[in-house]
Amino acid sequence: MPMIRVEMFAGRTPEMKRALAQELTDAFTRVTGVSADSVSLVFTDVDKGDWAQAGRLYSDPASD
Amino acid sequence: MPMIRVEMFAGRTPEMKRALAQELTDAFTRVTGVSADSVSLVFTDVDKGDWAQAGRLYSDPASD
Amino acid sequence: MPMIRVEMFAGRTPEMKRALAQELTDAFTRVTGVSADSVSLVFTDVDKGDWAQAGRLYSDPASD
Amino acid sequence: MPMIRVEMFAGRTPEMKRALAQELTDAFTRVTGVSADSVSLVFTDVDKGDWAQAGRLYSDPASD
Amino acid sequence: MPMIRVEMFAGRTPEMKRALAQELTDAFTRVTGVSADSVSLVFTDVDKGDWAQAGRLYSDPASD
Amino acid sequence: MPMIRVEMFAGRTPEMKRALAQELTDAFTRVTGVSADSVSLVFTDVDKGDWAQAGRLYSDPASD
Repeated sequence: MPMIRVEMFAGRTPEMKRALAQELTDAFTRVTGVSADSVSLVFTDVDKGDWAQAGRLYSDPASD
Repeated sequence: MPMIRVEMFAGRTPEMKRALAQELTDAFTRVTGVSADSVSLVFTDVDKGDWAQAGRLYSDPASD
Repeated sequence: MPMIRVEMFAGRTPEMKRALAQELTDAFTRVTGVSADSVSLVFTDVDKGDWAQAGRLYSDPASD
Repeated sequence: MPMIRVEMFAGRTPEMKRALAQELTDAFTRVTGVSADSVSLVFTDVDKGDWAQAGRLYSDPASD
Repeated sequence: MPMIRVEMFAGRTPEMKRALAQELTDAFTRVTGVSADSVSLVFTDVDKGDWAQAGRLYSDPASD
Repeated sequence: MPMIRVEMFAGRTPEMKRALAQELTDAFTRVTGVSADSVSLVFTDVDKGDWAQAGRLYSDPASD
């Protein structure tokens, strides 16, 4: 029943998500000994216009 | 102020979401005695290509 | 693989959580036809000092 | 590393999100003294058909 | 019904959370015009041993 | 700015969390090419009395 969530910028290909699901689950089971069958993983795509750092949206050009 | 969240595969109809919102809120208020007015509920649709179990995306056919 | 989350004030008894887990899962499966086996549910207790409405913590007395 | 999340109805303009990111980050750093550089913020748009209060979707007209 | 969430290191005082709840809600309503009454806010304290950047827990001393 | 979250049963040691933070971040950067510096990771411990599958809390013995 462990649940892994990954929030990242939108635009990753299905191939990359497939590899991430496999590799992250592998890493989790290798470290914890939990069965892979019980591991869920959800990706959440976030647009650059919905993500900010230091109060600036990633969709906005840096001012310097 | 209780908050219920439901993550499920995308594709449910508005009718099903309407019924879920009603039934889940009813169940919550019946068990806890909290007023329905204070119960919020949010649905999050997840694509099969964004959800994995055992390291395999639900959008991928099972290998066996 | 549907996931239900419930955020509510801390202090509910195990008996109430047990009943909520059962009743919310029942409601979900009744409406959607999804097998109960696939339904996960997580409770998150929130202290009144960590929850605010209208900018006021629930741990603070109302000013009127 | 503080993370602020804002769930709100879909439809806000980029300008409003830009102003929110700036103002919320400013408020956070003003109160806590944390450097703005370390503050992340994510917006999640929620459709009215995915948000319910008192068991009623916001996309549905009030019955009274 | 907007919902603001703040994840930050554990250890902030009630006074600081009270001020944050007020200031963040004020900022949100000022920018959006939404009534403060509808704005919920939840704080989640995260221990330094539960938060990592670049693969290193904040509870661990930097290696350089 | 990618954010990885791991919800799992409470009780993992700091050593295991340290290894998980390192291995999950490594897997993410290996697959995506994103710099490790930008990857945040948060662990959330969940008690068995707060997690249910098929409507049954993990803290409750199976009935069969």
